[in-house]
Amino acid sequence: MSSEQATHAAAAAASTPVEKAAPAQSKKQSKKSKKQDQQFLLKTPKGTKDWADKDMIIREAVFGSLSSLFKRHGGVTIDTPVFELREILTGKYGEDSKLIYNLEDQGGELTSLRYDLTVPFARFVACNSISNIKRFHIAKVYRRDQPAMTKGRMREFYQCDFDIAGNYDTMVPDSEILKITTEGLTGLGINDFKIKLNHRKILDGIFQACGVKDDDVRKISSAVDKLDKSPWEAVKKEMVVEKNQPEEVADKIGEFVKVNGTIRDVLTFLTNAEILKSNDSAQKGIEEMSILADYVEAFGIEKHLSFDLSLARGLDYYTGLIYEAVTAASAPPTNANELKEKAKKETKEVEDASEYVGVGSIAAGGRYDNLVGMFSNGKSIPCVGISFGVERIFSIIKARAAKQLEKLSSSQTQVFVMAFGGGEGWNGFLKERMEVTNKLWSAGINSEFLYKAKPNIRKQFDAADKSGSQVAVILGKEEYPQGQVRVKVLGQGDDSDEGDLVKVEDLVKSVEGKLSLLNRDGLDEITRLLQNL
Amino acid sequence: MSSEQATHAAAAAASTPVEKAAPAQSKKQSKKSKKQDQQFLLKTPKGTKDWADKDMIIREAVFGSLSSLFKRHGGVTIDTPVFELREILTGKYGEDSKLIYNLEDQGGELTSLRYDLTVPFARFVACNSISNIKRFHIAKVYRRDQPAMTKGRMREFYQCDFDIAGNYDTMVPDSEILKITTEGLTGLGINDFKIKLNHRKILDGIFQACGVKDDDVRKISSAVDKLDKSPWEAVKKEMVVEKNQPEEVADKIGEFVKVNGTIRDVLTFLTNAEILKSNDSAQKGIEEMSILADYVEAFGIEKHLSFDLSLARGLDYYTGLIYEAVTAASAPPTNANELKEKAKKETKEVEDASEYVGVGSIAAGGRYDNLVGMFSNGKSIPCVGISFGVERIFSIIKARAAKQLEKLSSSQTQVFVMAFGGGEGWNGFLKERMEVTNKLWSAGINSEFLYKAKPNIRKQFDAADKSGSQVAVILGKEEYPQGQVRVKVLGQGDDSDEGDLVKVEDLVKSVEGKLSLLNRDGLDEITRLLQNL
Repeated sequence: MSSEQATHAAAAAASTPVEKAAPAQSKKQSKKSKKQDQQFLLKTPKGTKDWADKDMIIREAVFGSLSSLFKRHGGVTIDTPVFELREILTGKYGEDSKLIYNLEDQGGELTSLRYDLTVPFARFVACNSISNIKRFHIAKVYRRDQPAMTKGRMREFYQCDFDIAGNYDTMVPDSEILKITTEGLTGLGINDFKIKLNHRKILDGIFQACGVKDDDVRKISSAVDKLDKSPWEAVKKEMVVEKNQPEEVADKIGEFVKVNGTIRDVLTFLTNAEILKSNDSAQKGIEEMSILADYVEAFGIEKHLSFDLSLARGLDYYTGLIYEAVTAASAPPTNANELKEKAKKETKEVEDASEYVGVGSIAAGGRYDNLVGMFSNGKSIPCVGISFGVERIFSIIKARAAKQLEKLSSSQTQVFVMAFGGGEGWNGFLKERMEVTNKLWSAGINSEFLYKAKPNIRKQFDAADKSGSQVAVILGKEEYPQGQVRVKVLGQGDDSDEGDLVKVEDLVKSVEGKLSLLNRDGLDEITRLLQNL
Repeated sequence: MSSEQATHAAAAAASTPVEKAAPAQSKKQSKKSKKQDQQFLLKTPKGTKDWADKDMIIREAVFGSLSSLFKRHGGVTIDTPVFELREILTGKYGEDSKLIYNLEDQGGELTSLRYDLTVPFARFVACNSISNIKRFHIAKVYRRDQPAMTKGRMREFYQCDFDIAGNYDTMVPDSEILKITTEGLTGLGINDFKIKLNHRKILDGIFQACGVKDDDVRKISSAVDKLDKSPWEAVKKEMVVEKNQPEEVADKIGEFVKVNGTIRDVLTFLTNAEILKSNDSAQKGIEEMSILADYVEAFGIEKHLSFDLSLARGLDYYTGLIYEAVTAASAPPTNANELKEKAKKETKEVEDASEYVGVGSIAAGGRYDNLVGMFSNGKSIPCVGISFGVERIFSIIKARAAKQLEKLSSSQTQVFVMAFGGGEGWNGFLKERMEVTNKLWSAGINSEFLYKAKPNIRKQFDAADKSGSQVAVILGKEEYPQGQVRVKVLGQGDDSDEGDLVKVEDLVKSVEGKLSLLNRDGLDEITRLLQNL
């Protein structure tokens, strides 16, 4: 196995080399397929994976929770094609453009798989001349990352975006996006997080005021962006040695980017900073941030926010507020639990967000007022949005809920219909089980039965257990011909309990009664699990 | 505009040619993008489209209805990558292999977009050594069809599949699949349909008994497959002229393939057919169909079934029962309404399914016992499944519900929070509206407010109307400072109704009360719409 294959061993865990049996083919085809009659790896392509079983249940619950949240805020969902005309994507991702997956040129248009959901959204807004929309989109995106470069980052993965497009009063949609970010994470049982905030106009203003030339602002910004992974000394060296800034300029920048705290505290610091007083960009940003400070208080989310002057965000297209939610939960194992405990205790206070630095963001976004304009002849539609890192969130939930997940069933079956009997003349009640199950289906009850003419009792209980059924409906050899069935609650560990004997016509009512007693809180299993994380 | 472009005018309806504004770029990039600074069509790729607005609401409702159904039957969902290793797809689709989309060879594995969900399912089952599963999968598939060939068929479209894999007693899962097909369609308000059934073993047996050589069976089957679009004379000609069968063989086949009716009636016909008596394949199929006849009665779906000896189904991989649901609803406009009326009246009786012939299938599937074996060294896992033609079903619903859909809102907002006031010192209550909206969100109520510091009354009502809100919460200039808000039901046409004046602390209770009165049936708008189709 090559090292490249080894890196992806996890993704291809279930793979076994098999010899392909030649399928029935037309003559023309069989000539071709003969060439392919050789060993090949039975697996998904590199950097992709199948989702199934409990992972799928968690994923669906995460998507469901976020969708409800987005709808609660007036969001509508859209769906765009998985591939776009190549020229739509060209020139939007800077150096990362090399990661775009192209479709083969089979004659006709040149197309590529989407790299994110933001550019297709901007294309959609421009295409349909939309003046305002709150849209959410949960879908897969594609990046041809090299495993060696990225340590297990997937080539196909989900993004989960909410964006507000339209001309509105300053910071109003921006503050709602921060509210949504907060609700999105707490709704998934993640409470130990901080949202780091910054403002591109303030950051650019700081760089200018510290003496960075306008042409160098973006590259200095991208150096500062590394502060979540590297110490200041390394970033300073990059500015001075690689990016040719005088050391005193770097030092001045250093005085700013180490500052973080509540919005109001950092605003006080910035307002008092002499060198920013004559910088229009910084003053504009400061004005906007003080408006934001009011709004986040109205939404009651200020405790989760940290104004952090070191936050720069990689993408070029941001024009205003930027933010990134980080959690201690994804910190390296050595101190993860400690941080987590600490975070749980202190979640009500704003703390130094640097503790969360380097542990990976679980949601990020910002304001981008000019992207739609690239598609619509310069007619700009201002936008602001958030992208939840659902796969990372998924891993956190999975790690935290490992124990509870063991018991979770991947199907949502409620009732298992069985037959008890045996001996001479016993026919297994297959048709009868079908009729009884049919009644339950008609009442909207999730039900299964064993696909066997003469099932044995043990196998029926095993199947019921595997299906996660809470109730068994039992057709007894003697009882059923009398028009009676037993309704028994499962998993109570009481084998002597034979359940209630009820008339077939009262079956649905009896089952519904038992199910509603068992699920008094009205929640399904996975929702209950998320709420108790 | 070329004829090819014209064919796709519908898909690109919203497209306008625009001049692309060059985005901010690094030097290396800007050189490249200069070349692209030219007019290009702002649209989705040929054969693809954006989903949005009411279409998206219907689509989500259709998917939701089918997902609940699948879960009711114990189904679990999986998700496979949108592309597979190319060799997985090779040799599975016969002549249609040329429609497979390939990804560009950018170094590394050769991959292609999935053509259907069945082959990835078989690969998944083999890959994970699964011995039994009931899985559903709703996802997009890709076919590089030429518009000229297919009249508007999309290149990216949804499939919605339910399959049962595992070794079970004969016809038990098969009959449940037929039950699911029936429930799936009726659950979406489609009652005027027939499911045509046939059995590959019977069909093959008929061909053999009529004198077709074993090597010719598949090609004669594919001629018969055309009977839903062509008259018998044309099919006979194809058999005799193109496929070299003696005319008497074709005539014998003709006697069989014109037969259809209830399962029991057609079984009687087949049992009495002298020439089948010594054909093992036919006898085996007849035996299985008579088992099926019992089971579909237990499920109460026999009225929707028609045993139709002309049904052949294109794909090679079917090995047993095959079926196809057809509806009069998608018939050509000339006789669609007539057929629909007739079907509505007669849905309780089995009728001649030939009336539905040629109107397009809305669900189809069958048993395929050998496909998994192609991936697992010959270790077969028998499978049976159904694929719903969701895009066709979507069109039917859209056409039938055109009028009701006008009123449907694409967002699910319930409450709009407004401020009334004006004049000197009026500040528009923006923070206050945020606080009130926040209370509603905390109570799980979908709520919006206008992103304006000082909104005017008309614009707030317009936005509330557009959002589909049922209730307005109004912060009055005089009332709110007294701790009171108005809660007013919208869309009652009574402008003089000023709503109830309630204390802010009673707001949530008041709103919940009004919403529950307005939605007494507990259904959301789209579910109600589907149920009343």
